[in-house]
Amino acid sequence: MKIIIEKDFDAMSETTKNILLGHMSQAKRVNLSITAGRTPVKVYEKLVATLKNSPNYSNVHYYNFDEIPVPNQEEGITITDLRKLYLTPAAVPEEQIHPLTVANYQEQDKKIEAVGGLDAMLIGLGEDGHFCGNMPTTTLFNKETYKVTVTGNEPWFVPDMMEVGMSFVTMGPASIMKVKHLILIVNGKNKAKILKEVLTEPITENKPASILQLHPNLTVILDEEAASQLN
Amino acid sequence: MKIIIEKDFDAMSETTKNILLGHMSQAKRVNLSITAGRTPVKVYEKLVATLKNSPNYSNVHYYNFDEIPVPNQEEGITITDLRKLYLTPAAVPEEQIHPLTVANYQEQDKKIEAVGGLDAMLIGLGEDGHFCGNMPTTTLFNKETYKVTVTGNEPWFVPDMMEVGMSFVTMGPASIMKVKHLILIVNGKNKAKILKEVLTEPITENKPASILQLHPNLTVILDEEAASQLN
Amino acid sequence: MKIIIEKDFDAMSETTKNILLGHMSQAKRVNLSITAGRTPVKVYEKLVATLKNSPNYSNVHYYNFDEIPVPNQEEGITITDLRKLYLTPAAVPEEQIHPLTVANYQEQDKKIEAVGGLDAMLIGLGEDGHFCGNMPTTTLFNKETYKVTVTGNEPWFVPDMMEVGMSFVTMGPASIMKVKHLILIVNGKNKAKILKEVLTEPITENKPASILQLHPNLTVILDEEAASQLN
Amino acid sequence: MKIIIEKDFDAMSETTKNILLGHMSQAKRVNLSITAGRTPVKVYEKLVATLKNSPNYSNVHYYNFDEIPVPNQEEGITITDLRKLYLTPAAVPEEQIHPLTVANYQEQDKKIEAVGGLDAMLIGLGEDGHFCGNMPTTTLFNKETYKVTVTGNEPWFVPDMMEVGMSFVTMGPASIMKVKHLILIVNGKNKAKILKEVLTEPITENKPASILQLHPNLTVILDEEAASQLN
Repeated sequence: MKIIIEKDFDAMSETTKNILLGHMSQAKRVNLSITAGRTPVKVYEKLVATLKNSPNYSNVHYYNFDEIPVPNQEEGITITDLRKLYLTPAAVPEEQIHPLTVANYQEQDKKIEAVGGLDAMLIGLGEDGHFCGNMPTTTLFNKETYKVTVTGNEPWFVPDMMEVGMSFVTMGPASIMKVKHLILIVNGKNKAKILKEVLTEPITENKPASILQLHPNLTVILDEEAASQLN
Repeated sequence: MKIIIEKDFDAMSETTKNILLGHMSQAKRVNLSITAGRTPVKVYEKLVATLKNSPNYSNVHYYNFDEIPVPNQEEGITITDLRKLYLTPAAVPEEQIHPLTVANYQEQDKKIEAVGGLDAMLIGLGEDGHFCGNMPTTTLFNKETYKVTVTGNEPWFVPDMMEVGMSFVTMGPASIMKVKHLILIVNGKNKAKILKEVLTEPITENKPASILQLHPNLTVILDEEAASQLN
Repeated sequence: MKIIIEKDFDAMSETTKNILLGHMSQAKRVNLSITAGRTPVKVYEKLVATLKNSPNYSNVHYYNFDEIPVPNQEEGITITDLRKLYLTPAAVPEEQIHPLTVANYQEQDKKIEAVGGLDAMLIGLGEDGHFCGNMPTTTLFNKETYKVTVTGNEPWFVPDMMEVGMSFVTMGPASIMKVKHLILIVNGKNKAKILKEVLTEPITENKPASILQLHPNLTVILDEEAASQLN
Repeated sequence: MKIIIEKDFDAMSETTKNILLGHMSQAKRVNLSITAGRTPVKVYEKLVATLKNSPNYSNVHYYNFDEIPVPNQEEGITITDLRKLYLTPAAVPEEQIHPLTVANYQEQDKKIEAVGGLDAMLIGLGEDGHFCGNMPTTTLFNKETYKVTVTGNEPWFVPDMMEVGMSFVTMGPASIMKVKHLILIVNGKNKAKILKEVLTEPITENKPASILQLHPNLTVILDEEAASQLN
């Protein structure tokens, strides 16, 4: 594990953008999986600025790693968010976008293996210790991509639009261990405690992100607040 | 995970030998970690036969992954066994052998990183679910190479020559996940039950080898008896 | 470059089979490109024997690297030969076979890039210094997959069924340099002189195989006769 | 080959810095070889700024790829230049610097193999078509690291301080092909013609950089002036 601590959100986002660009600039097909949410917004802002100046990234393919369907909408929350924040302003052509959905999740791992694996994945961390859609009470470490159905008794935060009986899908820990370079970004004081726990305390399915300690090539990029409880 | 089932011990050993030779035949430095014990004896017998005919493997370097010191002997049980079964009959030059010891274990992970990582590791499985020296009650998944001291209350098999207060060392799960190709060999009816458990049931530190389900490139080679409880 | 010298054709074939099995046994999609012709016949004989016993190689995909069409036949000389020697007796399912043809050669490099590249390629050497379909007077080192049309003035051996105006296709040197592990097999006294020239003398397009000296991971497997002019 | 065209020297340097940071940020030992000269000055200026903010790059090791000794000075032109531009202001510890010299050049390729190979190399292009110290009349494509002695009849530019009989050393084309990611940076109108020739015309030892067309993972970063003769 390599930990890089930057002074603030902007510096953290800058470093993250650079690492992603490093992957994207290789002379081969590059398969990336990237996260939705608030943590990466500045990463994408910066990437969009660069991609507009050097639009020559037709070798980069995108995969989302989880998805929550939205009733009466064609696409789910994750891919909709990724399109808004990044894929659309960066003008990524549709043939380079490979959505994971509730309908196709059972092919996700085969699909990724068939293109040579994921070169890099960008993920965030939840205050409850989740990563991707691997939640505290629904995670088994030995799962590849799987589906979870909401029961109404979840101890973790359930988004407003999820109702009892609805399902979401996520790549599981066994899928994530195969990613060649895993990049975890975390910012803010609120996450300092859980960050310390998942990176330094024993590995447990109750704090799913603790398994990330075992990834063979994990880079963690933090702002000073998120890092404040690490030594 | 890829599982290869061969009809018997000899066929299993032949396939394992071939996979190791495949690694050894590349045009670069190759770093191998190999197991002592009874399971690989025929693998080494076959390798020795080949290496005698084509002695051109000066690019291959050897690392043991655990060690139990022997009172009043210069070298421990593992490396002594590896020398007898393989390194000496195959005439591997001393500069290609890099022993892990109780004295140097704290440098093991750095030492391996400094040569570009382990290309392959050959391991076995204990009936109690251990792998390398990661035993049921002493394993924490987030450990790299570490030392264990015998307390006398071990639920697992303690070799005759180990006394209370003596220590052994082993590469931990976090070290093993970084190996580029992990090869697990298991034979015999006695191990059919534990094999099924560690490869298909939930991951738990009580059965340390269950963590191998998360290795990104694991090949399991079995005889039919060991495979008899798998579907 | 790593050179392995075996005592005879059988030993050379055995070692080559082992190296290929090493690749095929990894826990991921494996993309192989293999050669037709007489040099590999025993390699395939041995591979077929193994694959029949352990049929679990559904992860291995096959690509031919050159093709000569045959008038009034659906498939060309190379793939027909590969089917006869190996693919059919080894019972490789059709979906794991990806023929290169005169019709689709312009997609070959993109197709291979899209599956993560070739893990290994097995090639032979011609007495005139050719490899794949890269012939002495038609080779430009900077070519990827390309088409050659027979003029009738070729200084190299033209197969009987090729007539003036007919075309064949081949992966070029720039394609071959991207293969992760290149395996060259050569046997027999007749090839000792050209082997020495292409492996040790200056690189020149007149002896196309001389470019193989630059491959980053080349293993050469020889019988003693082929090796007889090397030091 | 991947070509990235940026609008000017600053943008080209920014992109190059990002790609290097991408490599440096992985959670493993990273071996870099970097170029002296004027083309990378802004790359190093930017890298120094970043490294000062996030000094956590103790995993990165540096190798120069050529060297010209200076009479009566302990260190040669290349490493002196690299220290001034980058290594000293970035405060890279001495144990992460591995100088190639006229005295140790025969161990260079072995030394690099023993640490797992070079992850990336940054190079420039000479107006005469040279790269590293591979000059138009002294280059053989099949060389690894080698020594050249000045004869006084060189058609290429000989630095002032080189006198007849003096020697320099350089990694050769066979060494460079093994680098996992090769990054070529070129700027300015003066180099537009030679750039076009070496990237698109036949490969020839008279224009040594033409061999770069065969590198399996080459990224070329240009300003618009250098790119002006490409299509």
